Amino acid sequence: MPHAPLVALLTDFGLSDPYVGQMHAVLASHAPGLRILDLCHGVPAHDIAAGAFFLAASLPWLPPGSVTCAVVDPGVGGPRRIVGLSSRDRLILAPDNGLLTLVLAHGAADAAWVFPVPDAAAATFHGRDVFAPLAAALACGASAASLGQPVPTGSLQTLSGLTPGRDGPHIRCRVLHADRFGNLVLTLPVTPWLPVLDAAPGLVLSPPGLALRRARTYADIPPGALGLVAGSQGYFELAAHAAPAASLAGLTPGQGVTISLEEPSATRG
Amino acid sequence: MPHAPLVALLTDFGLSDPYVGQMHAVLASHAPGLRILDLCHGVPAHDIAAGAFFLAASLPWLPPGSVTCAVVDPGVGGPRRIVGLSSRDRLILAPDNGLLTLVLAHGAADAAWVFPVPDAAAATFHGRDVFAPLAAALACGASAASLGQPVPTGSLQTLSGLTPGRDGPHIRCRVLHADRFGNLVLTLPVTPWLPVLDAAPGLVLSPPGLALRRARTYADIPPGALGLVAGSQGYFELAAHAAPAASLAGLTPGQGVTISLEEPSATRG
Amino acid sequence: MPHAPLVALLTDFGLSDPYVGQMHAVLASHAPGLRILDLCHGVPAHDIAAGAFFLAASLPWLPPGSVTCAVVDPGVGGPRRIVGLSSRDRLILAPDNGLLTLVLAHGAADAAWVFPVPDAAAATFHGRDVFAPLAAALACGASAASLGQPVPTGSLQTLSGLTPGRDGPHIRCRVLHADRFGNLVLTLPVTPWLPVLDAAPGLVLSPPGLALRRARTYADIPPGALGLVAGSQGYFELAAHAAPAASLAGLTPGQGVTISLEEPSATRG
Repeated sequence: MPHAPLVALLTDFGLSDPYVGQMHAVLASHAPGLRILDLCHGVPAHDIAAGAFFLAASLPWLPPGSVTCAVVDPGVGGPRRIVGLSSRDRLILAPDNGLLTLVLAHGAADAAWVFPVPDAAAATFHGRDVFAPLAAALACGASAASLGQPVPTGSLQTLSGLTPGRDGPHIRCRVLHADRFGNLVLTLPVTPWLPVLDAAPGLVLSPPGLALRRARTYADIPPGALGLVAGSQGYFELAAHAAPAASLAGLTPGQGVTISLEEPSATRG
Repeated sequence: MPHAPLVALLTDFGLSDPYVGQMHAVLASHAPGLRILDLCHGVPAHDIAAGAFFLAASLPWLPPGSVTCAVVDPGVGGPRRIVGLSSRDRLILAPDNGLLTLVLAHGAADAAWVFPVPDAAAATFHGRDVFAPLAAALACGASAASLGQPVPTGSLQTLSGLTPGRDGPHIRCRVLHADRFGNLVLTLPVTPWLPVLDAAPGLVLSPPGLALRRARTYADIPPGALGLVAGSQGYFELAAHAAPAASLAGLTPGQGVTISLEEPSATRG
Repeated sequence: MPHAPLVALLTDFGLSDPYVGQMHAVLASHAPGLRILDLCHGVPAHDIAAGAFFLAASLPWLPPGSVTCAVVDPGVGGPRRIVGLSSRDRLILAPDNGLLTLVLAHGAADAAWVFPVPDAAAATFHGRDVFAPLAAALACGASAASLGQPVPTGSLQTLSGLTPGRDGPHIRCRVLHADRFGNLVLTLPVTPWLPVLDAAPGLVLSPPGLALRRARTYADIPPGALGLVAGSQGYFELAAHAAPAASLAGLTPGQGVTISLEEPSATRG
């Protein structure tokens, strides 16, 4: 027996307004047998980079065949395109504003389409009036080719600054997100950077100019120390022991940081 | 094949306590095949006017045949009645405290009932012990007439102050809600006020005494200006460009405001 | 027709990150027909006592046969065990860190198991990589005995300080939780303490040294007074009239308080 189709939602709408509920209502009205999965609605308002991170980190866990609506869309109602991206048997709908940057960076773009905006759509709420009905139709079996126009995946907008750079022993990256526990996710993917970091005898984070302690779990970090953990979302995280690393490090999302690899001590001899 | 019955929930319970989860648990226990849809649980605590707005704005998007539990109920356990309202093939259950005001104002009241409170209900949590079991029974096919007593729809409580008034060129209304993005929803429905506002050469908002820029989308509003948008919830909204209008205008929910229509320039000639 | 299996989730992950969504995604991937119920994700970060309270208060409302994943787990990835507890035909999965304290205190422990951690699990996110797949398997019919090792229920960790003590007319307990409305839940169960409190002619709370007014509903409490309500969660609550009791009493979760029973006036004669 085939399983019910599934639509996943990822937005910056928060849960203090009826916006997400109205998306659910439209999905339930268009496709009564649909399963709806809330990935997250807590993307910081208008923060496309954080949305790109949440999306790329979550997509692999969704079942194949699912459709994801990703709506972080400060330009709603304007000229930005509404696009679909097929990636490893999952379809993502998003405004074409860079939200797909990290999915594209992972090399997982099979095909893309542009979809039209219905005339009746409210200019300020395409999540409810454009994305939800489109997702319902696609999840229930309509083909992307029948509802949209194919476009090259290379035509999709991407954000710059979401990949790290290296300058000798200095790895330059950014704080991508501060989570509920105060862990700071960096734009430094575990793959391929894990062996680089593990080979260094020591690590220093600047700012603030503090030694970083490599740790496997949060509880392994000594109280008061700043730890560097290969995080569950596929990126390295700054963390602390039962405390917010954000406070300890004095860093906030968007800030650039440098992790400096100490030389092996032999070079000092 | 008939679709699974659907119960929608709208409350001021928030999501930091297990209250909403316990409503879900009761619904799942009473009606295992039920679909449950969370419209919103972020109505500001005890804010019946905001709840009335969320309810009226969301109801049209729900599928016909659905049952909505709306619980913003500062008088829980007291003498206020528990009522049901049938409106355009949707049933709403609510405390009779004004929460239905804007549904009634939209002229969409077909019939109403009063329901009894079971003796075993916790005096402080009718959402779980009264509304949820009642909603489950009604969604699964029990008739309102079999569980409650009919009452005139005109007997339901309504809040005053949720409709605008006009005094020559001055439209007086109130801030109904500040959303997550800082947009301020006014008690000024798009229908029938859109042509009135669009015919004016200019608009001034008092307080704070600022020109209002009519805009179709949020991005159309010039940075630093205060925009007036025909919002997706059916009401006009004060908005700003990638910034909270609430801060720019210095207004909070509940405050009264006046929008003054400028005269056509011919009158100055 | 048997009903779809149900997994309930209770965590301190919040909803501002994609963590809960990824647990849903794993559950949906492993068991497409599963019903998923969010009990609450707003347990204060790392607050095992609050989690223990949310769990014990919610469990009776869940349908028999359900599986609950309770994840408040500051020691994730460390040596603490992953356990299952069978209680009144419901199964709970949790880290063995005291989260089951109040379920055990209610005398509802039928059997317990310890489950292994798969090698591939991310060290910092067992909710997604250990608990969710395990819950999906158990909800879909796998036996706990086939996936884990039986252990005595008496071997499970418990927290101290969650049960009240009495010293003559003085009942000593703690603030367990402040809810969204500012009600303060005490570690004082309605059963068996209701007749004790109702028999006293008066009650005094220290700190802050204020008379407590016994009330059936929140609205029954006079404005400005501090009320004591037999709460819907099975514990007594400090409450106030349309105001946060937390502010009025100047108390926060974790603080110890004493409720002193006044003597019947006859003793003064």
